[in-house]
Amino acid sequence: MAFRKFLPLFDRVLVERFTAETVTKGGIMLPEKSQNKVLQATVVAVGPGAVNPKGNVLPVSVKVGEKVLLPEYGGTKISLEDKDYFLFRDGDILGKYVE
Amino acid sequence: MAFRKFLPLFDRVLVERFTAETVTKGGIMLPEKSQNKVLQATVVAVGPGAVNPKGNVLPVSVKVGEKVLLPEYGGTKISLEDKDYFLFRDGDILGKYVE
Amino acid sequence: MAFRKFLPLFDRVLVERFTAETVTKGGIMLPEKSQNKVLQATVVAVGPGAVNPKGNVLPVSVKVGEKVLLPEYGGTKISLEDKDYFLFRDGDILGKYVE
Amino acid sequence: MAFRKFLPLFDRVLVERFTAETVTKGGIMLPEKSQNKVLQATVVAVGPGAVNPKGNVLPVSVKVGEKVLLPEYGGTKISLEDKDYFLFRDGDILGKYVE
Amino acid sequence: MAFRKFLPLFDRVLVERFTAETVTKGGIMLPEKSQNKVLQATVVAVGPGAVNPKGNVLPVSVKVGEKVLLPEYGGTKISLEDKDYFLFRDGDILGKYVE
Amino acid sequence: MAFRKFLPLFDRVLVERFTAETVTKGGIMLPEKSQNKVLQATVVAVGPGAVNPKGNVLPVSVKVGEKVLLPEYGGTKISLEDKDYFLFRDGDILGKYVE
Amino acid sequence: MAFRKFLPLFDRVLVERFTAETVTKGGIMLPEKSQNKVLQATVVAVGPGAVNPKGNVLPVSVKVGEKVLLPEYGGTKISLEDKDYFLFRDGDILGKYVE
Repeated sequence: MAFRKFLPLFDRVLVERFTAETVTKGGIMLPEKSQNKVLQATVVAVGPGAVNPKGNVLPVSVKVGEKVLLPEYGGTKISLEDKDYFLFRDGDILGKYVE
Repeated sequence: MAFRKFLPLFDRVLVERFTAETVTKGGIMLPEKSQNKVLQATVVAVGPGAVNPKGNVLPVSVKVGEKVLLPEYGGTKISLEDKDYFLFRDGDILGKYVE
Repeated sequence: MAFRKFLPLFDRVLVERFTAETVTKGGIMLPEKSQNKVLQATVVAVGPGAVNPKGNVLPVSVKVGEKVLLPEYGGTKISLEDKDYFLFRDGDILGKYVE
Repeated sequence: MAFRKFLPLFDRVLVERFTAETVTKGGIMLPEKSQNKVLQATVVAVGPGAVNPKGNVLPVSVKVGEKVLLPEYGGTKISLEDKDYFLFRDGDILGKYVE
Repeated sequence: MAFRKFLPLFDRVLVERFTAETVTKGGIMLPEKSQNKVLQATVVAVGPGAVNPKGNVLPVSVKVGEKVLLPEYGGTKISLEDKDYFLFRDGDILGKYVE
Repeated sequence: MAFRKFLPLFDRVLVERFTAETVTKGGIMLPEKSQNKVLQATVVAVGPGAVNPKGNVLPVSVKVGEKVLLPEYGGTKISLEDKDYFLFRDGDILGKYVE
Repeated sequence: MAFRKFLPLFDRVLVERFTAETVTKGGIMLPEKSQNKVLQATVVAVGPGAVNPKGNVLPVSVKVGEKVLLPEYGGTKISLEDKDYFLFRDGDILGKYVE
């Protein structure tokens, strides 16, 4: 997998957004502008964690494979092997979905 | 319950606002614009707490089920199973109602 | 009392402003615009105190019942049982009146 | 004295400005606009001191009765028994006059 | 090599960007404006690390020779022997490519 | 001396600027606008030093009588016995002239 | 040497920029506007270092005589015996040239 080869630094988390719904429940095709921004994502790689002033690493709070809720703004879009991923700082991720 | 499946991160608190009054005491229907913004809410999920520079977790000050007073501005609206919830940082919640 | 049921969080202090003078010493009714903003208030509830980075609580510097001087700006107006109160952070209260 | 009854909080210092000169050395009355802003003041009450993150109080650096030099801007004007006083944070006072 | 002679200070990292693609996969020459900004780079020199308030040095998180992903904005362009390099702070580098 | 009676607070340093040159080397009188701002000054009084969060005093880095270089902007002009002095924070003084 | 007599305070570093090239390799005189800003400089004096909140001095990272690379903006121009020098904070110097 592409993201296996990319290691975020510090407290950065690499996520892949869920696919946007392109068809309504009623079966109508949605033009791109009407599609909601997808805020759910899957964690695909995590950094080792931020470093505090003493030099200790504080691990990030999410793990690879977890489903998370992203903030509406922020994050850095990056391309890995022609696929879009997003980098967020651990502290900006709003929460995670647990079973 | 929907919020059981969502776990806020750090010091975030997930709340559900009380229902707005849509009818005056005198029985008159209120148009949406005249309805006051509801600042009372019930805590439905809490994060584990913020992490201090030493890596220790500082628990949040409210518990699930508590009735709280929200600030007029701020908070992040999120949708879980077609229902609106709001995320606030623990430190932004003004106070709680106790019996 | 209403404020008994509301507990401010962290270093917030709930105060009730003194009643504005609506009549001059000479007996003339003052229109609302001419009434001075009342900066004296009585503390009606206090939060447990701010939490420092180590997780220790720092108690607030005023007590319920004390008469305080408020800054001219700031504070959050809240309504409890149809009565107006104000929330100030402990550090924003200018001073207190002692006997 | 009025200020005996008012206790500033934290590192606030209550001062009373010296009276402005209203007559020139040559005996000419000065209109209020020509009177210089008086920056010398006498300390009339001091707060217990700021609280550091550990909860320890750091005493203020001036004492009641000391003559101090105020910055040209800043400070909060307050009225106690129809007399004007000013509140400054300890750290904003420029210096003091010693014998 | 030029960069051997230049030592970045503190947590600065000297990188050399990958060469921009000047020809499309289909063989068409790209004008300079159509060339994407190259965000991949090779680390050519690293500073000893930032100094914390206690005077301890916190080593940087990347090593000479590693392939890194740069943020789209930021960095300082410097010329060493007529060749362009870029200085980034360690904390601004998004991640690294690992085998 | 006037400044003997004035004690700056915290890390403030009271300086007296050198006299501006009013005549060129060739003997031409300089109008006030053409006189360069004098950045050299003599330290005439120093505060005890800033107080750190633990309450310890950190002494200032210059001594009374030392010749210092002032920054072009900043500083507070104060008058003591009809003579102009300037207050600078210890950290804003650029350097000192040593024999 | 002039700079021997001037001692920068705290973490300030006094540098002398290299002389700008006023003639092209081809022998053409360059007007002042076409001359590049010289970013290389020699360290001529260093301060003792910044003081941390505990009062300990953190030495600067460059030494007198070292060749350094300056940032394009910032720094304070000062004149010592009619010669121009520049003061930079230690942390703003980008790097140094080593043999």
